[in-house]
Amino acid sequence: MSALQILGTNPSTRRAWLAHNTGHALDAVADAAFAPEDVRSNIENLVGAAHVPLGVAGPIRVNGEHAHGSYCVPFATTEGTLVSTYQYGMWAITEAGGANAYILGDSLDITPCFVLDSARQSISFVQWLHDHLDELREVASETTAHGYLTEIHTHVLGRRVFARLVFSTGDAMGMNMVNIAADQICRYATERTACERYYLRCNYSSDKKPAAISLFRPYGKEVAIDFTLPGNVVETHLGVAPRDLLDFTAAGRLGAMQAGALGMNAHFANGLAAIFIACGQDVAQVVNASIGFIDLEPAGDNDLYVFARLPNLVVATVGGGTNLPTQSECLALLDCQGDGTAPKFAEIVAATLVAGDLAIAAALANGRFIEAHRQNRDRNRAAAE
Amino acid sequence: MSALQILGTNPSTRRAWLAHNTGHALDAVADAAFAPEDVRSNIENLVGAAHVPLGVAGPIRVNGEHAHGSYCVPFATTEGTLVSTYQYGMWAITEAGGANAYILGDSLDITPCFVLDSARQSISFVQWLHDHLDELREVASETTAHGYLTEIHTHVLGRRVFARLVFSTGDAMGMNMVNIAADQICRYATERTACERYYLRCNYSSDKKPAAISLFRPYGKEVAIDFTLPGNVVETHLGVAPRDLLDFTAAGRLGAMQAGALGMNAHFANGLAAIFIACGQDVAQVVNASIGFIDLEPAGDNDLYVFARLPNLVVATVGGGTNLPTQSECLALLDCQGDGTAPKFAEIVAATLVAGDLAIAAALANGRFIEAHRQNRDRNRAAAE
Amino acid sequence: MSALQILGTNPSTRRAWLAHNTGHALDAVADAAFAPEDVRSNIENLVGAAHVPLGVAGPIRVNGEHAHGSYCVPFATTEGTLVSTYQYGMWAITEAGGANAYILGDSLDITPCFVLDSARQSISFVQWLHDHLDELREVASETTAHGYLTEIHTHVLGRRVFARLVFSTGDAMGMNMVNIAADQICRYATERTACERYYLRCNYSSDKKPAAISLFRPYGKEVAIDFTLPGNVVETHLGVAPRDLLDFTAAGRLGAMQAGALGMNAHFANGLAAIFIACGQDVAQVVNASIGFIDLEPAGDNDLYVFARLPNLVVATVGGGTNLPTQSECLALLDCQGDGTAPKFAEIVAATLVAGDLAIAAALANGRFIEAHRQNRDRNRAAAE
Amino acid sequence: MSALQILGTNPSTRRAWLAHNTGHALDAVADAAFAPEDVRSNIENLVGAAHVPLGVAGPIRVNGEHAHGSYCVPFATTEGTLVSTYQYGMWAITEAGGANAYILGDSLDITPCFVLDSARQSISFVQWLHDHLDELREVASETTAHGYLTEIHTHVLGRRVFARLVFSTGDAMGMNMVNIAADQICRYATERTACERYYLRCNYSSDKKPAAISLFRPYGKEVAIDFTLPGNVVETHLGVAPRDLLDFTAAGRLGAMQAGALGMNAHFANGLAAIFIACGQDVAQVVNASIGFIDLEPAGDNDLYVFARLPNLVVATVGGGTNLPTQSECLALLDCQGDGTAPKFAEIVAATLVAGDLAIAAALANGRFIEAHRQNRDRNRAAAE
Repeated sequence: MSALQILGTNPSTRRAWLAHNTGHALDAVADAAFAPEDVRSNIENLVGAAHVPLGVAGPIRVNGEHAHGSYCVPFATTEGTLVSTYQYGMWAITEAGGANAYILGDSLDITPCFVLDSARQSISFVQWLHDHLDELREVASETTAHGYLTEIHTHVLGRRVFARLVFSTGDAMGMNMVNIAADQICRYATERTACERYYLRCNYSSDKKPAAISLFRPYGKEVAIDFTLPGNVVETHLGVAPRDLLDFTAAGRLGAMQAGALGMNAHFANGLAAIFIACGQDVAQVVNASIGFIDLEPAGDNDLYVFARLPNLVVATVGGGTNLPTQSECLALLDCQGDGTAPKFAEIVAATLVAGDLAIAAALANGRFIEAHRQNRDRNRAAAE
Repeated sequence: MSALQILGTNPSTRRAWLAHNTGHALDAVADAAFAPEDVRSNIENLVGAAHVPLGVAGPIRVNGEHAHGSYCVPFATTEGTLVSTYQYGMWAITEAGGANAYILGDSLDITPCFVLDSARQSISFVQWLHDHLDELREVASETTAHGYLTEIHTHVLGRRVFARLVFSTGDAMGMNMVNIAADQICRYATERTACERYYLRCNYSSDKKPAAISLFRPYGKEVAIDFTLPGNVVETHLGVAPRDLLDFTAAGRLGAMQAGALGMNAHFANGLAAIFIACGQDVAQVVNASIGFIDLEPAGDNDLYVFARLPNLVVATVGGGTNLPTQSECLALLDCQGDGTAPKFAEIVAATLVAGDLAIAAALANGRFIEAHRQNRDRNRAAAE
Repeated sequence: MSALQILGTNPSTRRAWLAHNTGHALDAVADAAFAPEDVRSNIENLVGAAHVPLGVAGPIRVNGEHAHGSYCVPFATTEGTLVSTYQYGMWAITEAGGANAYILGDSLDITPCFVLDSARQSISFVQWLHDHLDELREVASETTAHGYLTEIHTHVLGRRVFARLVFSTGDAMGMNMVNIAADQICRYATERTACERYYLRCNYSSDKKPAAISLFRPYGKEVAIDFTLPGNVVETHLGVAPRDLLDFTAAGRLGAMQAGALGMNAHFANGLAAIFIACGQDVAQVVNASIGFIDLEPAGDNDLYVFARLPNLVVATVGGGTNLPTQSECLALLDCQGDGTAPKFAEIVAATLVAGDLAIAAALANGRFIEAHRQNRDRNRAAAE
Repeated sequence: MSALQILGTNPSTRRAWLAHNTGHALDAVADAAFAPEDVRSNIENLVGAAHVPLGVAGPIRVNGEHAHGSYCVPFATTEGTLVSTYQYGMWAITEAGGANAYILGDSLDITPCFVLDSARQSISFVQWLHDHLDELREVASETTAHGYLTEIHTHVLGRRVFARLVFSTGDAMGMNMVNIAADQICRYATERTACERYYLRCNYSSDKKPAAISLFRPYGKEVAIDFTLPGNVVETHLGVAPRDLLDFTAAGRLGAMQAGALGMNAHFANGLAAIFIACGQDVAQVVNASIGFIDLEPAGDNDLYVFARLPNLVVATVGGGTNLPTQSECLALLDCQGDGTAPKFAEIVAATLVAGDLAIAAALANGRFIEAHRQNRDRNRAAAE
């Protein structure tokens, strides 16, 4: 066990040890909005807090099943122009009457790998799993009040069975819940079958990894967005002619297809990372969540129909980092605190990502993109002098 | 323009406006380690700071070309067990004498799309680009002292030319640099050819997007890691028999291939997100950076040969968020501040990601993974009471 | 309508027209094993027959659920060394006691795209589909006695609904069956809902196209293969030490992953193409069918455990080209003619593909690969002189 | 060695053996357009010929760099409606004045894997390869008069080096050429470096396998196609309104992206398989060749701009199966026999594939697709009675 671990729970002792051993003081990080005991289930070897600049963009009008209203959305980022890009898109969407939002799906899966002796045994084991689905549901339900095992999908590959266990989860993000429920299922199964070994995870569900599987099933919340953007709003609020925005979109679509992209969007990851940091989400989930689709097409005489599918929003409004002081304030700003608010949060996030993609597309179509970055560079240089 | 923007540069005015209009006070976020004027090139519509718990794991021994020594690595996260997982892997690597690290490549590209009238014109335009490469290098060099246009790769798709411009960059992350240099090249080209329209970006370079292109060329730093882990270190420090770790690795490899993963790793994204937040990196780059490979194989009698390729580390030690107070302290902890230190930082990050993957593999192979999560849940519940 | 079409059903008239208009006689092709009237549902604008060299490799021992016995497998190809490569692998498998084969799944899907006015309408339409599943099954059953609609999976993307209709099929390959049944379902649905337009296919099911979806569900027969190859058989029949074969396999696995391969195999496509041509299959199905997995691992002291999953074998033993003279003889050679024999055929094909992959892996591991190609080149040159 | 191999070169002996041992006579296949000695470099264990129905569609007007004129294209298939589908598209293209065709690239690569002891050694070995490029070119040139080593791209993954060797080839398909040249390079390199083991192929170049790498570099001929289809031709010859064809295309594009397709086309594989069988190509190459792009967009008032990129056409007009009797006649029909004609053949194939995709899109957009299949089924049933 390393010194960092044996230094106990006191961040200042650990900072002192680091200063002594590395020669670098950690002063700024000492100022934390939370007490060490408040984060003991969130982090180990605590030394303090990273302070990430926090901005707010909005309001964005969302006409969702769960989110009805106008929202000011918090972003934690150090990337200049990010917040203002989202701001532009939100302004246009709100002017157009808002973005419709729908929850299409909501589940989380985990895929244990069961190791057997032969394909024949694997096939028998798969049969056993399907024959005992009700029992396995019971086993899972003993570990969680909020999760429910909905389906099992199996892939046999020689002497290994990959069993994707699909759970509905409540408002918790659900990762811990499915880990624990799945492990219980695995133990139960291995005690009653020829299978003697399992691995709780084996990369198949591709949590926090870019994989094609994330095109095909909800991982977390799956959200649909659509709305019509009147031609004049495109012109006045996004600063571009609808036909130019369509032409850019065609280029971007071809670019994404030629690059072998999973999904089709310009920068969902930017908004995701900034909102996830601000709101205490598991930031590595940006990887899966960035796999999503947005597209535009002509509507009416000069309008645009905008539509999106974001199938991988693993978000939570309870547990994890959501209760920490600044994170909790950010969720409160969206009225997304506590039980029952995760779908609402997902709708707001999805609408916001669409805003950001519209804005960057407009900026790339009309040349403002590079102007914004050039100005930001100049601000940066001025700041450095 | 929305109210949030016209409220000027004062975060407290903006917080007051939000409190009045949303009914939610933003108090905790008001405490920021930086002054508003320090972050005006990092964020817009500032309201304060997100405080993310910061922990440190290490030391990890790195035997790199740029990083020689033992490092304590900062992680900003709210995900319990993350830091301790990396800690375990670091401990094993250090005990084994350290991870060898090499920079295999270092470049950044951007792909403008040029719009012409026909494939014939596209082909002529491509010829023009290749014929004027030296001039275009000159044009680029007028916008940046540190970037250099090394290559142009073109894809013709009908009346569009996708021209991937590859730049070497210095220690800056380089995104702004390549944006500005590429735009200058585009202007220069469109003024001298039949091309009348271009889009500076069109998704092809897949910045912050999961795409197959990121398997094939460095995007940022490409780092190789390898080392031999003695069997007894695997047993004592990772708590698993080498043959069991190999068996798990085989399952994980098959899982990743069946899921259509880009790359092969267990959770590079976790370490990336946590270090990137702590060290002022562009966090959305976690998406590309998570595309990388790690694998194990038997060596000697009972040892393991561990090797990895991380081809997409877009990192910086100057510019962006690297100069902010807590971020700057975190980089200083690694002796990675200022010009010339980005390759060193990349080597440390890469070795750390490998540590995290080894540790989670061991935990999944020996069952400790679920124990750690179960204990963390219990801590969490205790905290909630 | 072009002259080629108006020339009616007589191939000799068409050949004469071509000779007159292009200056090139088609003499060799005039010799066909079938009469024009026998192929009028197989081809249009008939001019004769392509004669493809036909060889036979075997016997290969298959221990399947449907194929029990030893089989001599026909290959139509012009690629030298192909048949002998498969021959080597079959020899080794048979010596080892045969390949176990299992049918893991058997279905075919087709994905119509329904066009509506908005995401809201799309969601209602999806609900309608799921609410009327029994009716839709009824509708489908009126068009086919052998097909059965098992499931509907829907993806909403804005105003479009992609509805993957999954069918069990009988021994026919099933493509025509699902086209007709699905069209009837689409008509039925559009007559009863707000949907006014549908497209029967929209690329989502990826028939004859390389797409990640083919990793995740059976498309045609899904077959599992496994068996243990004794170390001495590896040495005597494949001419390579087991550890060298494993080392090569590791390299091939890493190569496939780095190349972004869908599946993992060396040359399934070679065997597929040759058998499909010989046996009257739809040869373009080689594209999907080539997406499959094979891997090896150590077993016992010096043996190898070989396992494979081939999830996309769209094959038939009735209909299509299976009744033509030479094709019918080739199927008869495998005792795979007529109703009930498609699963047997799939098992034989799968085992054969595994044989071919083993043999080429051994040849690449021991250097015989290049010797075979060098000798073949010399034969080729001698033939040209 | 099995009985099939020791039966020597006489197909009739082998047929007799098979008849005796399997109880199935092979009579129809005995009728072959070639003599056994003509195909001894094309196949082993010869028993005769598969007779595949051969049809011709055309003429299609191609305005290429190599193919100038109108061509009647041979298809060998047993899939009813295939030839007539291509016929429709050819008719429309020809009416529109033809398809422009361009060769964008022409190369073939092979990726040996070199095995070393460590990443450090791998990096040194890569350096050695790049330092000795001229020597390696010399070594390659000793094995072939037509191939030339243009580039080497290396990927280091731990103790393995994947070295993609890129060759220009002449009119031969080039596979054998690059095998032999690459092997010579490997021997030369391993004799002069620390590397003691190499594998000539390791899946990285993904020959005959569906992999993302095939989006990024020519594998064989890379061909561009474009042309404008007047609105009235769309209506009269394809039977659909341009706006409906565009609407279908949008649906197909979204379907392909959601399915994780490599490339974007409806059924390139159909035309490829049928032409490749007819013309003596290596049919398994359909897998890579099917990775390509086609798209449409509005042009002028009511016209359509059609464009395509087919980057993976591995085709030949000499060697392989191109000299066999029926195959040779089919190539002659296109005036594509012998040295210098491969690029011309590639242009014709590419234009033909575009014709087939246009026609099927129109048929899916206007509902004729299902009519054609329904009628064909009825013909089939009639034939069976």
